[in-house]
Amino acid sequence: MTSTPTLDILGIGNAIVDVLARAEDSFLAAHAMAKGGMALIGAEQAEAIYQVMGPGVESSGGSAGNTCAVAAALGARVGFLGKVADDGLGQVFAHDIRAAGVAFPTPPLPAATAPTARCLILVSPDGQRTMNTFLGACVHFSEADLDAAAIAGAKVTYMEGYLFDPPAAVSAFYAAARMAHAAGRQVAISLSDAFCVHRHRDAFRRFVRDEADILFANESELLALYETDDWAAAEALVRAEVKLACLTRSAQGSVIVSGAETHQVAAVPTQVVDTTGAGDAYAAGFLAAYTKGLGLAEAGRWGSVAAAEVISHFGARPQADLKALVAG
Amino acid sequence: MTSTPTLDILGIGNAIVDVLARAEDSFLAAHAMAKGGMALIGAEQAEAIYQVMGPGVESSGGSAGNTCAVAAALGARVGFLGKVADDGLGQVFAHDIRAAGVAFPTPPLPAATAPTARCLILVSPDGQRTMNTFLGACVHFSEADLDAAAIAGAKVTYMEGYLFDPPAAVSAFYAAARMAHAAGRQVAISLSDAFCVHRHRDAFRRFVRDEADILFANESELLALYETDDWAAAEALVRAEVKLACLTRSAQGSVIVSGAETHQVAAVPTQVVDTTGAGDAYAAGFLAAYTKGLGLAEAGRWGSVAAAEVISHFGARPQADLKALVAG
Repeated sequence: MTSTPTLDILGIGNAIVDVLARAEDSFLAAHAMAKGGMALIGAEQAEAIYQVMGPGVESSGGSAGNTCAVAAALGARVGFLGKVADDGLGQVFAHDIRAAGVAFPTPPLPAATAPTARCLILVSPDGQRTMNTFLGACVHFSEADLDAAAIAGAKVTYMEGYLFDPPAAVSAFYAAARMAHAAGRQVAISLSDAFCVHRHRDAFRRFVRDEADILFANESELLALYETDDWAAAEALVRAEVKLACLTRSAQGSVIVSGAETHQVAAVPTQVVDTTGAGDAYAAGFLAAYTKGLGLAEAGRWGSVAAAEVISHFGARPQADLKALVAG
Repeated sequence: MTSTPTLDILGIGNAIVDVLARAEDSFLAAHAMAKGGMALIGAEQAEAIYQVMGPGVESSGGSAGNTCAVAAALGARVGFLGKVADDGLGQVFAHDIRAAGVAFPTPPLPAATAPTARCLILVSPDGQRTMNTFLGACVHFSEADLDAAAIAGAKVTYMEGYLFDPPAAVSAFYAAARMAHAAGRQVAISLSDAFCVHRHRDAFRRFVRDEADILFANESELLALYETDDWAAAEALVRAEVKLACLTRSAQGSVIVSGAETHQVAAVPTQVVDTTGAGDAYAAGFLAAYTKGLGLAEAGRWGSVAAAEVISHFGARPQADLKALVAG
């Protein structure tokens, strides 16, 4: 028997501050960056890229962090677990996520151990973002940072696939899933990025099959997971392995598959300025509606509305009144 | 006889990182903030306001700093003098202004002395911004930071009126004007803010009359300077006292007065998202064209184009290709 939930969504992820700058595709080519992807970089490389990139705008990011902020803006009760350092960027991250209405209990790492993570994001003229992530303090997130009461009290514990990159986080990831299931709750995961899936395919396959109740993936991530070019085959596999999967397809909207059910959800047309956070916002919209008890198609619509808002401006967190947008 | 200029514009100002957040007018009222104005705050007050304000976006700001970044985007050769601390925000400011193509030779203050200045900016639903500035390291800017060669080599030395707030900067301000004039160059000043004019009216009056070759002011600033409600009277006074004055009037465009000449310049219509930096961008556009040798009316048009771009999005520095916009 499960107790009364105290949270709708508990997100766990890398606590990152984004530094966004515009860049031509020639800049990406000159610095050997794979357009649209996320590369992990070290402290020195982060410094070198920062030196050559254009004027930046700093704002809190992180995949699950973005999802939490968007879900809170939609009225969900949300918590977040992730590791910042006790430094300037760490204070920025903590302020922003709390100001968004998200509970954030994880204690910061001493600044001398490692600095707060940052993601250097180059936004191309077509709105695509190319990310370079220095994980810093995030690699120190571990099982000790799991808030057992928060996990047991959350309807859905949502984890970003990027957590497979810092090794200590992986065991925390599994421990969190066990805690959630022991409390009769659901576990959701976002595959995050096709390159991340390639880096950790076996671990992803096992987690998706054995632990995930809800899966979020875009087209390239799903194809990477099942090592296929055949969308229908991938969809059939995910339908067999996961209770509920939300598969996003950019301008083609999303497909929600759950057992015998299939829902095609249209994208909400918008002027694309910066795609940073599109998938995060979709997951937020979906989960905010889903944990409120709305149907799968309506939850998909909330996801589309939230994603459209976030890609219509620079930055991954909402600027408009999302509650009004989903009501409208 | 003057030597060949090495810079078109040398800006001197407070080196500030902006933290922008949206806020309802009721928030401003509850915290006794004068909508549309700039208040100076101490370190503790800065912390208290930051705790209660919404999720923020950090980007480099400062009035003259913004002007320099916009002028460089328009192709002018630009330098900037201002004081940051050797801390995280100081690195952000230095990176951003240099990445914008602006020379920035001022050495940073040790972080233990004072932190980099920040401006907590609340943006109202109508796009107006209300600023709370903690000057931090800026109060340590002094004559010792003046780069004599840069000043002597710049066609125009441009100073923001906000420099009248930190006392050591005021003497630097006068020293810079003397250096510029001794080298046969021009001195420009922006009045910055009506409240700032009220705080330092006598000093402003004296500087405008005795030192300024070019004055930038908006309507409320000019009326505050001459302690009048009569626009025609203020315009007559400024025409008599300053060789060249650019008077901005928001949506009514600007009036450029110079001796017997008067140019009415239309504003460029745009969707107002955030007025932060409108005056800074106007001055940048005007000075970039003026130092290129273009006429006063054309320089005013560049000012209008630059201001329209900056108020059409969140943040005070340009996002679009300004060279294309003034050519278009």
